[in-house]
Amino acid sequence: MKDNRVEHITIQKIGNENIIEQEDLVAVEEPLGIILEFSTGSGRMQKNIAVTMRTPGNDEELAAGFLFTEGIIKDAHYIHDIKHIASDDNRVLVTLRQDIIPSLKNTDRNFYTTSSCGICGKASIDAIRTSSVYTDQPGDIAVRASLLYHLQDALKEQQEVFENTGGIHASALFTTDAAFVMLREDVGRHNALDKVIGAALLEKKLPLNEHILFLSGRASFELIQKASMAGIKIVVAVGAASSLAVELAKELNITLAGFLRNDRFNIYSAYKRIIV
Amino acid sequence: MKDNRVEHITIQKIGNENIIEQEDLVAVEEPLGIILEFSTGSGRMQKNIAVTMRTPGNDEELAAGFLFTEGIIKDAHYIHDIKHIASDDNRVLVTLRQDIIPSLKNTDRNFYTTSSCGICGKASIDAIRTSSVYTDQPGDIAVRASLLYHLQDALKEQQEVFENTGGIHASALFTTDAAFVMLREDVGRHNALDKVIGAALLEKKLPLNEHILFLSGRASFELIQKASMAGIKIVVAVGAASSLAVELAKELNITLAGFLRNDRFNIYSAYKRIIV
Repeated sequence: MKDNRVEHITIQKIGNENIIEQEDLVAVEEPLGIILEFSTGSGRMQKNIAVTMRTPGNDEELAAGFLFTEGIIKDAHYIHDIKHIASDDNRVLVTLRQDIIPSLKNTDRNFYTTSSCGICGKASIDAIRTSSVYTDQPGDIAVRASLLYHLQDALKEQQEVFENTGGIHASALFTTDAAFVMLREDVGRHNALDKVIGAALLEKKLPLNEHILFLSGRASFELIQKASMAGIKIVVAVGAASSLAVELAKELNITLAGFLRNDRFNIYSAYKRIIV
Repeated sequence: MKDNRVEHITIQKIGNENIIEQEDLVAVEEPLGIILEFSTGSGRMQKNIAVTMRTPGNDEELAAGFLFTEGIIKDAHYIHDIKHIASDDNRVLVTLRQDIIPSLKNTDRNFYTTSSCGICGKASIDAIRTSSVYTDQPGDIAVRASLLYHLQDALKEQQEVFENTGGIHASALFTTDAAFVMLREDVGRHNALDKVIGAALLEKKLPLNEHILFLSGRASFELIQKASMAGIKIVVAVGAASSLAVELAKELNITLAGFLRNDRFNIYSAYKRIIV
């Protein structure tokens, strides 16, 4: 079966003053348009909600996860149907139930942004915060530090696209016993997380307050915010954490760890959930 | 002098079943609002153009670079003034000259996106392409492969924030003799590139068709598009290239190299500009 997440191309490899022309694999990056159909006072309408550059695959999860982590829908039962628009691999139509009004206040503003943070289009600096429906979930889980050391190894056999291309982000869920639950990969790290949360939403497994979220890269404000929308209480990143990611994690009582290696890591907030 | 690009925080370092509580540095991530003031048929107006999560510093360059690489302004002389709004470190007002009409077609759409690609807010998949004013610039430069091997070393002494936090992206310019010209750092890789291009714009050094652009991370569609807006012909990335980055580089005749190491790299497009 053809894997639409990777593409075969011809490249020149340069090394030791030699040139070798050979075939190589790159991660596929393509735009996905997310279109929402919903009821208004005067009937049904369709609205372009977003275009995101993503790696194909799990597009329905990505669309559902995006709508949920951006606060546009609050529950899986809001969704009547999600499907690709006929003959277009790069557009997904999410149809809401007749009685559902989506929360589109953040999308009705006439401006945009560009950044790896993904807070695009929010109307003002104050408006970048979304609020979770799961803030009241218990967060009294804990995990042994030594279990975290090997999360990355546990993922390596699962990360097919990364393995082949070296050019992709991963988000994954583990239980607090470090048992693997789910992995999603994408050229965009926000997309990888939205796919994980979207999958959990569609499988009616939210909130994720008894799971560990693993991030293959750095932890930004936006990723912590998305995690909080799904009720996640423990986030472990291979990369660094930003100042605002740490601030938000502290405020929301989320345990944030970073610089995960085989024998060490840093904890930035809510230390109590890591047992040494 | 206090460096507002890094923040001192207390963390727990876990390793070998030990806990050490100590001070650490994280890269600062804060929202920057970019506000544009311009003339309309009926007078002057101000419009919120974007909110981007950035590392403070070089905010004027970031705002100018963003407006330029998004095609909203076409030249430095469009800008009358750029300054922070009084008492607000996180908002920048860009005032255009009286006779200038900005190209805001891509910002007048009612939707947004989230992704590390940064194509936020464009109205449709077809609309993600911007077109450069510098497509007719000569691109007949060339660089010796062995000079590229050491670009990363040359930057290490300059990358202050990365050195301290490990959590930041860099964009840099070099001459084709591999002489260092400029470095900008940011938590967002698009911001780092917009700062470089904005600095060149404000110093009236565009187009950059005789420079090498260095990227500390992966090369996405959006970064190649931004580079093309500044007339850049050679892009060298430490990370992987995505499928769409390679396609766009081929189409625009930009030389794209990736996986840069001390003794090797890959070339994805327009091989002719690398001499082995």
